[in-house]
Amino acid sequence: MAEIESIARLVNELSKLPGVGKKSAQRLAYHIISLPEEQVRDLAVAIFNGKKQVHYCSVCGNFTDVDPCPICTDHDRRKDIICVVKDPRDVNAIERVREYHGLYHVLHGVISPMNGIGPDDIRIRELMTRLASGEVNEVVLATNPDVEGEATATYISRLIRPMGVTVTRIAHGVPVGGELEYTDEVTLMRAFEGRREI
Amino acid sequence: MAEIESIARLVNELSKLPGVGKKSAQRLAYHIISLPEEQVRDLAVAIFNGKKQVHYCSVCGNFTDVDPCPICTDHDRRKDIICVVKDPRDVNAIERVREYHGLYHVLHGVISPMNGIGPDDIRIRELMTRLASGEVNEVVLATNPDVEGEATATYISRLIRPMGVTVTRIAHGVPVGGELEYTDEVTLMRAFEGRREI
Repeated sequence: MAEIESIARLVNELSKLPGVGKKSAQRLAYHIISLPEEQVRDLAVAIFNGKKQVHYCSVCGNFTDVDPCPICTDHDRRKDIICVVKDPRDVNAIERVREYHGLYHVLHGVISPMNGIGPDDIRIRELMTRLASGEVNEVVLATNPDVEGEATATYISRLIRPMGVTVTRIAHGVPVGGELEYTDEVTLMRAFEGRREI
Repeated sequence: MAEIESIARLVNELSKLPGVGKKSAQRLAYHIISLPEEQVRDLAVAIFNGKKQVHYCSVCGNFTDVDPCPICTDHDRRKDIICVVKDPRDVNAIERVREYHGLYHVLHGVISPMNGIGPDDIRIRELMTRLASGEVNEVVLATNPDVEGEATATYISRLIRPMGVTVTRIAHGVPVGGELEYTDEVTLMRAFEGRREI
C-alpha cells in the first residue's frame, strides 16, 4: 500500500508512548491530522516545551522549570520534614491531598537487585547531604508499599536512624501491592495521618 | 500546589486527545518529560509535520502529501472501479487487506439528519463529477453497516444507478452495527468478495 510517510512516522512515534498500541496510535494520528492546524501546533509545542523547560530541581529532584523548585523555596512550608518518594508523579499525588506541607525528596527509582539498581543508582546520597544540615527532624518514607518500595524504605531508615532523625513510613492505608500514583486522596490522607516510626 | 506550568499545559493538551483522560494525560506527560530530548523532538515534529504536510487528495479526498494521492495516480490500479468510504481510516483498513485494487472516494462523513448532515455536506457531488467521465463501471459502497452508513449507501445508489454504473454494497460479512475500522482482515475480505449489486 502507498502509505503516506508523514502519517506513518506519526503513527510510529505515537505507538512508542506507554499504553498506546498500533491501533490507538493510528486512531490518534488520524484525529491529530483532522484537528485545526493551530490546535496541532499547541500540542506539538506543549510536548516540546514540556521537555525543554522542565528539569530536575537540584535540591529535591522533582520536576521544575525554576531551580530550586517552587516547593523547596516556598516559605509557607515546613523545612524540618522531608517526604521521600520514588517518582515526581508521586509528589503530584501527595500534593493533590493538600494535607502534607513539608519538603520532598525524589529518589528517581527504588532499590531493585533484580533490575540491577542498587542504593548508589538512586538519589539516596543527595538525601543524606540534605540531612547533614541538621535542619530536618523527620523523614517520611513514602515509597510504594510493594516489595521494592519496602526494601528501599528499610534501607534508608537504617542509614538515617543513627543521625538522630525521626524516620516514619506512611501507614498501610495505601493498599499493599498498589501504586501510590493511583491511590485515592482519602486513602492517601489516612496513610499520612497513620504514619509510624520505623 | 505549585504546579509547573509547562507540565500543566502539556497535560491539558494531551487530555484533549480522544480516549485520553486526565490521569492518562498525566502519565503520558511524565513519560514524555522523562524521555531523551531527541525522542521528544521527533514526536513533536512528527505531530506538527503530520498535520502540516498531509492534505486531502483533490480527486479522492483521502489524506496525502502529494496531489493527486499515490493511489489515484497508481498505474497498477484499476480505474474502472471506485470504492466509497466514510473516512480516510477506512481506506487504510481496506488497503491492509490487499484484496481491492481499484480507486477510492472518501465522503468525509455520512448522511445524518440527526446531526444536521445532509447529502450536500459530504463529498457526494465530487463523486458524481468523477463518474461523469464515463471511465467508471462499478461503485462499491463501503460505508459502515450501521443506520447512517446504510442510508448513505441507499441514497448514493439511487443517484448513480440511472447513470448506468453498476453499484455494489460490501456484503454483511462486516458485523452489523460495527465499525469498519476495527473489522479484522478476513471479515473485510469476505465482505469484498460477497459484494452484491443494489
